[in-house]
Amino acid sequence: MSRILSSLRYPLIQAPMAFAHDTELPLAVGKTGALGSLAGAMYDTAGLEKALARMKQEGGRPYNLNFFAHRTPSADRAQQDAWFGVLRPYFEAYGLTENDIPSGGGRQPFDADALACVERYRPPVISFHFGLPAPEYLQRVKATGAEVWSSATTVEEAVWLEQNGADVVIAQAWEAGGHRGWFLNRHPDSQSGLFALLPAIRNAVRLPVIAAGGVSDAAAVSAALGLGASAVQVGTAFLLADEALTKPAHRAAIQTARPEDTVVTNLFSGGAARGLYNRFIREAGPMNDAALPFPLAGAAAGALKAAAEKQGCYDFSPFWAGQNAGLCRPGSAAEIVERLCGGIEC
Amino acid sequence: MSRILSSLRYPLIQAPMAFAHDTELPLAVGKTGALGSLAGAMYDTAGLEKALARMKQEGGRPYNLNFFAHRTPSADRAQQDAWFGVLRPYFEAYGLTENDIPSGGGRQPFDADALACVERYRPPVISFHFGLPAPEYLQRVKATGAEVWSSATTVEEAVWLEQNGADVVIAQAWEAGGHRGWFLNRHPDSQSGLFALLPAIRNAVRLPVIAAGGVSDAAAVSAALGLGASAVQVGTAFLLADEALTKPAHRAAIQTARPEDTVVTNLFSGGAARGLYNRFIREAGPMNDAALPFPLAGAAAGALKAAAEKQGCYDFSPFWAGQNAGLCRPGSAAEIVERLCGGIEC
Repeated sequence: MSRILSSLRYPLIQAPMAFAHDTELPLAVGKTGALGSLAGAMYDTAGLEKALARMKQEGGRPYNLNFFAHRTPSADRAQQDAWFGVLRPYFEAYGLTENDIPSGGGRQPFDADALACVERYRPPVISFHFGLPAPEYLQRVKATGAEVWSSATTVEEAVWLEQNGADVVIAQAWEAGGHRGWFLNRHPDSQSGLFALLPAIRNAVRLPVIAAGGVSDAAAVSAALGLGASAVQVGTAFLLADEALTKPAHRAAIQTARPEDTVVTNLFSGGAARGLYNRFIREAGPMNDAALPFPLAGAAAGALKAAAEKQGCYDFSPFWAGQNAGLCRPGSAAEIVERLCGGIEC
Repeated sequence: MSRILSSLRYPLIQAPMAFAHDTELPLAVGKTGALGSLAGAMYDTAGLEKALARMKQEGGRPYNLNFFAHRTPSADRAQQDAWFGVLRPYFEAYGLTENDIPSGGGRQPFDADALACVERYRPPVISFHFGLPAPEYLQRVKATGAEVWSSATTVEEAVWLEQNGADVVIAQAWEAGGHRGWFLNRHPDSQSGLFALLPAIRNAVRLPVIAAGGVSDAAAVSAALGLGASAVQVGTAFLLADEALTKPAHRAAIQTARPEDTVVTNLFSGGAARGLYNRFIREAGPMNDAALPFPLAGAAAGALKAAAEKQGCYDFSPFWAGQNAGLCRPGSAAEIVERLCGGIEC
């Protein structure tokens, strides 16, 4: 049982998507009776505070605040050189040098500052990607009264999450766009389609299971509920929401994508994530062993993306998308919720 | 429209599974009003003739005769040496030498003899894996009145099949056990979960679409039909049928498998196929670049399997299984059909 899932009008969660939306999208989704999500990984402490203040001010609706639960890794000089070796030709083409690489990876892990914000603003749901934070942090999150949700990409991960304090498991299938939430078995070989992952996780844990990956229209929502999901989490469809920050080129590409036009790549952050093929992926990926560990690869890749986009070129932009991108259509968040769940109420 | 699909009592096809069944399974399935399939790839000409004679004798029900539409490749000495180099330690452990490798790969392609059999026995459905045979052969198959079905693992392949004469497309998703039917894009990166592949193919072609991969219970059958499938094709569930030839160790392993316990490997035939992890796959695979092209790798791998099994060891046996193996339960073919489709009639 999940108090939050039970309180929703629609069994639908808008997936948190760092840099693809701010507070407007989750606020608009929340107003419909579905659950909106904030992407905590995109904020520094001041930004997070501001976002949470806005959620509180507009308040009344439950929402989900998502964090990445990774531990920030380090990379030695040789690893950095190897990764820059992959990028050098592109850097040179855009007049960039290694000095243009910012420090950090652009994605914040859950830390003491974030925890302090959570304790201050008490979001109804705190979800994690890449496992769960350290037990003492997790305890303090739970002490705020928040439900704790986390993503599993295998049965093994789902069982681990149940044993380590999660309240709800999000079954993230192979179809899903964006970063794979894997944390025990980080290999594409281990990843399952939703038809298999959802029933297998549902049978393996007592927790409610949310289906994620490949759910882009009403038929898929019904199919996922029929396979035992308590709710669905939908990302790509909301990239086309008027309230999202998705770039026009990204919006256009999503609507014409076939499943095979998407691929899991580690080029943009070091973490494996599904997005649309582009020149960078074709030439240097999709998986490149030299990419620095998540999120460090993102610093150099981000510099390249910014330089290219300044010239109107999206060859180096991560256009995240799930395998069902081609089913998505633009509209307001409310229209998208209606299209997905119009015939279904909890 | 498919005349055959319209004639079925249940929208269910028992997948053809070479070496896992003979005529008994498709005959038993056919009697229920679902569609049974014969695996043509496991027969030489005399064996095929005998199997078709039996299907005719027991006749009355439509059935599907499946062929592999690959062109038999060749491998030079260096390629053979490289592949044997991978296998040598195992060969030595079982007292085998290179002389114990039989010629051929153990899987017959569709050829003139098979065509002659088809013209003589006129099976109602001829399905192909790995694309379609040469146009002149395909024409002669169609001239027998047979419906021609074939598998697509991408939208691109589905469109190609429609343009090249198929009557029905089987959407073979990433979840599926056994050999991937891919023929245009042979890379795991291009492969989609059924939640994405099925609607995408359904939207891209006018032909009826059969859903394959991840369908192992009644909930999955309903979900696939809800996503637009005209029928489902089910393999792994029928490996547990009393009428199948599946070995006891394979039957036992299927029922406890998690999705992540299966993997796509090329070790057993050179073609990519999903089965249960074992020692051979962990040590030499799952994908090994030295494996000879399909089906040639199967000769040496088969010799190893036979020697190991003689000692009661299944470390080198391909235990094919889809990602939803763990949902499958033993029974007669009729009971399995009832379990899958009891509540559904066409």
